[in-house]
Amino acid sequence: MRPTRLSPGLLWILLTICPAVLAGASDGLRGTGDLGVIVERATGSIQIVETTSRTSLARITGLGDLSHASVKYSRDQRHAYIFGRDGGLTQVDMLKREITHRIIQSGNSIGGAISQDGRLLAVANYEPGGVKVFDAKTLALVADIPTVDHEGQRSKVVGLVDAPRQRFVFSLFDAGEIWVADFSQGDSPRITRHRDVGRQPYDALITPDGRYYIAGLFGEDGMALLDLRQPDAGVQRIMEGYGRGDELLPVFKMPHLEGWAIAGDYAFMPAVGHHSVLVVDRRDWSEVARIPVHGQPIFVMASPDQHAVWVNFAYPDNDTLQVIEVDTLELTASIEPGPAVLHMEFTPRGEHIWVSVRDANEVHVYDAYSLERLARLEVQSPSGIFFTARAHRIGF
Amino acid sequence: MRPTRLSPGLLWILLTICPAVLAGASDGLRGTGDLGVIVERATGSIQIVETTSRTSLARITGLGDLSHASVKYSRDQRHAYIFGRDGGLTQVDMLKREITHRIIQSGNSIGGAISQDGRLLAVANYEPGGVKVFDAKTLALVADIPTVDHEGQRSKVVGLVDAPRQRFVFSLFDAGEIWVADFSQGDSPRITRHRDVGRQPYDALITPDGRYYIAGLFGEDGMALLDLRQPDAGVQRIMEGYGRGDELLPVFKMPHLEGWAIAGDYAFMPAVGHHSVLVVDRRDWSEVARIPVHGQPIFVMASPDQHAVWVNFAYPDNDTLQVIEVDTLELTASIEPGPAVLHMEFTPRGEHIWVSVRDANEVHVYDAYSLERLARLEVQSPSGIFFTARAHRIGF
Repeated sequence: MRPTRLSPGLLWILLTICPAVLAGASDGLRGTGDLGVIVERATGSIQIVETTSRTSLARITGLGDLSHASVKYSRDQRHAYIFGRDGGLTQVDMLKREITHRIIQSGNSIGGAISQDGRLLAVANYEPGGVKVFDAKTLALVADIPTVDHEGQRSKVVGLVDAPRQRFVFSLFDAGEIWVADFSQGDSPRITRHRDVGRQPYDALITPDGRYYIAGLFGEDGMALLDLRQPDAGVQRIMEGYGRGDELLPVFKMPHLEGWAIAGDYAFMPAVGHHSVLVVDRRDWSEVARIPVHGQPIFVMASPDQHAVWVNFAYPDNDTLQVIEVDTLELTASIEPGPAVLHMEFTPRGEHIWVSVRDANEVHVYDAYSLERLARLEVQSPSGIFFTARAHRIGF
Repeated sequence: MRPTRLSPGLLWILLTICPAVLAGASDGLRGTGDLGVIVERATGSIQIVETTSRTSLARITGLGDLSHASVKYSRDQRHAYIFGRDGGLTQVDMLKREITHRIIQSGNSIGGAISQDGRLLAVANYEPGGVKVFDAKTLALVADIPTVDHEGQRSKVVGLVDAPRQRFVFSLFDAGEIWVADFSQGDSPRITRHRDVGRQPYDALITPDGRYYIAGLFGEDGMALLDLRQPDAGVQRIMEGYGRGDELLPVFKMPHLEGWAIAGDYAFMPAVGHHSVLVVDRRDWSEVARIPVHGQPIFVMASPDQHAVWVNFAYPDNDTLQVIEVDTLELTASIEPGPAVLHMEFTPRGEHIWVSVRDANEVHVYDAYSLERLARLEVQSPSGIFFTARAHRIGF
């Protein structure tokens, strides 16, 4: 049988390109339920990790200023959205391990959210103050919401979260207002404004069921509560005692409200400026207990099975993690991962917890029950750790 | 330049196989967070679906008897495990859209569970009674737990669930026992037996935090409760009034306990044989209310934002779905999807609900708030609908 004649060009294509693509395909074809992103704060990069065998899959660079950066996920858990401090919004394809879209959407921003249906991304901006909403697929601008208060002043936006019924909720730091932007009827949102909620809301949280939006106040004690099922009832003040109080203690870092934990009938929250964790009855927001801890708490996180609450601390006590048992409200463990423990993230079903130890340039993985250290990953100045299971949760 | 000589065989390989694989690769490369499986009960097949644009991606056949079939997912959400009634256990690669492993592990089985770390699969068996545990990757047998009671009788196993700390919990129908198999120390489980829990436990549920295991009793009224954080306290009896009572009403179908809903401070559960949904205080398991509904409830499911509870019904009222508002405990809506509404599943963040309408050979997708029908998929005798977000939940 006669050999076929084939031009060198075509032969080259078949022999080189094809195997290359095959390799790429076999790399790329994988589930995305066990993926995550770790922010490398100092280098403007991220690492894509997987929690099944606890390895790093790739590093993506060129993401700008990632201090206070946060990460959201597309509803199919293929794409990560990185919200940078410099107004950068970057869409990363975690399967192809590359940046697919990147825009600088403002001068200075502080976090974002993704809509209930996964179609819209919202970003909270400091300079100029406002919220911009983008198409999650293309990052094309969908809506621009300048946060101009009733006196015509533009206000910084903080505490932006997604809420059920295709809503975004956020607070105006300078104006002391809480706004609800409702996208359920299309891309021109219906905006509801709640005024005089308190002085300088600086951060906020939404409960896991997406019902209660709670803003912390920097300018006074207490917090502002909005029931998103009954928004017409307006904003009420809760926990008058929460804040720095009259003593005006030195506050090394205002705690993150995303660091709140709801477990069982309690909410656990960092006391501002005090070495204690507050335990609050989540039905009437009354204080149940104050648990003395190692330092000023920053993140207070409940394990997915709600048996324990993990706490990290502000400088100079930030080498330590402590564990509080939810049933007894007692400290049951204390470990020292190393210098500058910035953030923690549980695996979705709670068997492990990943911990950023910034100044050791390491992320540690611990068994959430035995506290045994299972793995150590090299990460440059790690800060936030975000797993893709967040794509399936309200307010994450 | 001289053309290169190439044997017809090699040329055939390059020209045919390579493009084929390329096509496969581009198909296969996708996130798995928006995937799901719909069981086609009558034909022993499943459809792989995606919830972002609400389409069917593939049909997989040859899965045996799928009546009462249930589906679990690997922790990376790439593989689905289908537990058949005939003892078949099938691992499906949802990206390659093919069966990767299939075994017949017993003569007759009723559901399974996947361990907290995703490494182990457990299957509950009727004939012969017992639990078999398999490696989730290979389906190789890891442990065999024959359920022989204290009188030496082998017992059917029901109500098998996963629990935190690498445990499986299940009930012995004939023996009236609840067993806990602890795999946290390795593949030879530590078994704890709780005897005399009540006559004929027929199904069970575990609360979303993995703390309370509750078994329904077929042989008497009431339910058996085990606190998995304090197993030494033993099993206690709750809700003495729950069951068929003395009237011995005709029960067309025992309700599924996975059909229970925990929302806010309440548990919503189907009343056995009655046209009502029971509302129970989840702190002391006392009855708070009885809500009259359209028929005998089967599944009672809370929306992810816990604002509503959806209910379907037993024959002959199984053409209808009703919606109960959690805050007011009032019926707020009633729709008629069609003949034989067998199962419902919410999208992970609750914007949509998918509904199996078996005798119309359709699955409907509704907006969970407006109740508008958004899509209709052709599915042969659809029964269970399972989305991959279950991989990240305890007891799902």
